[in-house]
Amino acid sequence: MRIAQLAPVCESVPPGGYGGTERVVSWLTEELVRRGHRVTLFASGDSHTRARLIPTVERALQRGGGPDSVMAHILAIGAVQRRAAEFDVIHSHIDYLAFPAFRESDPPLLTTLHGRLDIEGLAPLVRHFWQRPLVSISDNQRGPLPGANWVATVHHGLPLSDYPLGEGRGGYLLFVGRISPEKRPDVAIDVARRAGVRLVLAAKVDPTDRSYFETVIRPRLDEPGIEFIGEVDQTAKVALMRDARALLFPILWPEPFGLVMIEAMACGTPVVARRCGSVEEVIGGDVGRICDDDDALVRAVGEVGTIDRIRCRRWVEQWFSVERMATAYERIYRRLAVARKADRAPVRALLPMPVAAGD
Amino acid sequence: MRIAQLAPVCESVPPGGYGGTERVVSWLTEELVRRGHRVTLFASGDSHTRARLIPTVERALQRGGGPDSVMAHILAIGAVQRRAAEFDVIHSHIDYLAFPAFRESDPPLLTTLHGRLDIEGLAPLVRHFWQRPLVSISDNQRGPLPGANWVATVHHGLPLSDYPLGEGRGGYLLFVGRISPEKRPDVAIDVARRAGVRLVLAAKVDPTDRSYFETVIRPRLDEPGIEFIGEVDQTAKVALMRDARALLFPILWPEPFGLVMIEAMACGTPVVARRCGSVEEVIGGDVGRICDDDDALVRAVGEVGTIDRIRCRRWVEQWFSVERMATAYERIYRRLAVARKADRAPVRALLPMPVAAGD
Repeated sequence: MRIAQLAPVCESVPPGGYGGTERVVSWLTEELVRRGHRVTLFASGDSHTRARLIPTVERALQRGGGPDSVMAHILAIGAVQRRAAEFDVIHSHIDYLAFPAFRESDPPLLTTLHGRLDIEGLAPLVRHFWQRPLVSISDNQRGPLPGANWVATVHHGLPLSDYPLGEGRGGYLLFVGRISPEKRPDVAIDVARRAGVRLVLAAKVDPTDRSYFETVIRPRLDEPGIEFIGEVDQTAKVALMRDARALLFPILWPEPFGLVMIEAMACGTPVVARRCGSVEEVIGGDVGRICDDDDALVRAVGEVGTIDRIRCRRWVEQWFSVERMATAYERIYRRLAVARKADRAPVRALLPMPVAAGD
Repeated sequence: MRIAQLAPVCESVPPGGYGGTERVVSWLTEELVRRGHRVTLFASGDSHTRARLIPTVERALQRGGGPDSVMAHILAIGAVQRRAAEFDVIHSHIDYLAFPAFRESDPPLLTTLHGRLDIEGLAPLVRHFWQRPLVSISDNQRGPLPGANWVATVHHGLPLSDYPLGEGRGGYLLFVGRISPEKRPDVAIDVARRAGVRLVLAAKVDPTDRSYFETVIRPRLDEPGIEFIGEVDQTAKVALMRDARALLFPILWPEPFGLVMIEAMACGTPVVARRCGSVEEVIGGDVGRICDDDDALVRAVGEVGTIDRIRCRRWVEQWFSVERMATAYERIYRRLAVARKADRAPVRALLPMPVAAGD
């Protein structure tokens, strides 16, 4: 199929460091190319792909110096519009921004919503654009928008070859992601100290979280067994995951998916998580512990040694591979393209061809 | 004609206090209704108009508690799209946000750009959507985008009956608008003190300008003859303008229009301004002083007593009335609608030739 992937331009595709959405878009894009699809990736110019890359800004916005985020994404939408006729399906990963831009005369627009959905104003917006098919990245994510036009939940999937099995020899607990109140790095520190196990925090501090970091987290980094190493690149992250005894994921927010959980498990590292958001969909069987309070998190850390690391990897191979994700999206793309052909044939036969959008 | 006005929802239409764009949209809308057009105003639900009001959010965003600005405006665009077939023309005042949303099969989309245009990313955006007809609010504003698809400059106009002639008996200088570095309230204070004339600052402090206010402006508010009264409503503003000896407008930024200048002049109050942005287009003849430095501003304050206040009002009656603004827009609406009816393509033939279309 001829597929357009419309990626956020906050980070490059794939991102150098933090950037879950851009990473998933990259994996999906490369796998679709591998399967022989003609994929066009609309992303920042510093992206790398085997697909055709149409740069919509020169560099990822997080590098600074570019247009503001809304302007950059409107420009990206314009770039897709101009070439819309070249595609069988357009797959948007930029929230709701493309909703007003595509019509029934365009290729179908599929939107995967990557963020949390309990946001003021989103429900009326989704009701208004009710005809836009949506994909959730967990069933739990749908909670605030039960009546939206969901066509599927497609859990993220990763290329297992990028995450070799490790043996957890470092003996430490690992916290990966962002330092922000809802990710609860403070609880991670509490739990690690009470369990008497070393904790490595490999996490980015966004400008908005700077004061939280300075006031709540930094004062605790001198406590024994607590090591903060900031944002790490993909290679360092995978190495850290392979050697970790467990990933600590004590989040207190409606996590839409939680990519680090499957990354850790792919490396054989079990996950100790709080029951929140998508956690129960991502951790299952005997590959981690789902806890309801801090005491349970401490106990779980004591027990993770009994979890078979190979079993964790098999879990990801079975449920969270990029192949499974790509197959799920392929199926949706086909359904949309077929539905469009069936619907539009008689209309097309009766009416003159529409003027090409824009130019 | 059947006209859609798509207003920003940051403030209500008209706004309670500060909010130049929403105020101009209100004036234009009411005048078009008065002329018998069927006008639909897409604006926040706390707006007031004789046109048909389609509320796109419940309350203006500045009142807090609503969706974020982008989401609210995407929702507004959706509301216009749903009723697009009802209109002969859609007039957008929300920057570039509606660019991707309307096509040649829709009623023509006219966009008045109300902001400064020397913004990173705007030039490629406007090149990309080169077929969208644009209106500037001063010729000077066009500077950074000389090759854009400008169809006209339409200076703002106001309803003179809302701005009765005053006699300037208060004897003070007036600074109105926002306390922000580029509006130079600090220079206003310097100039007033050097000229030995009392200064009233009736101005809003936005959250982004709070620290500038606290560090640069607040320490000076105890100086003799300096009175800060914060943001004022329309009635209070007009009263202040009528009694002022002159409006001080020492801006140091590319002011796209500067509504307060015509508001003051309508009340008979001359304007003492720095030569910047639109100033030379708005102040002319013998209705104010255009200055190149602080010394000239001080001298000008000493001379404004010689300016005939009635002449200031006549200047606004002649060039900056809402009637003149509405007539200018009517003419553009007709051109766009006629061009569309004749044939979809030749819209561009009637309009200035665009520059090459970016990539």
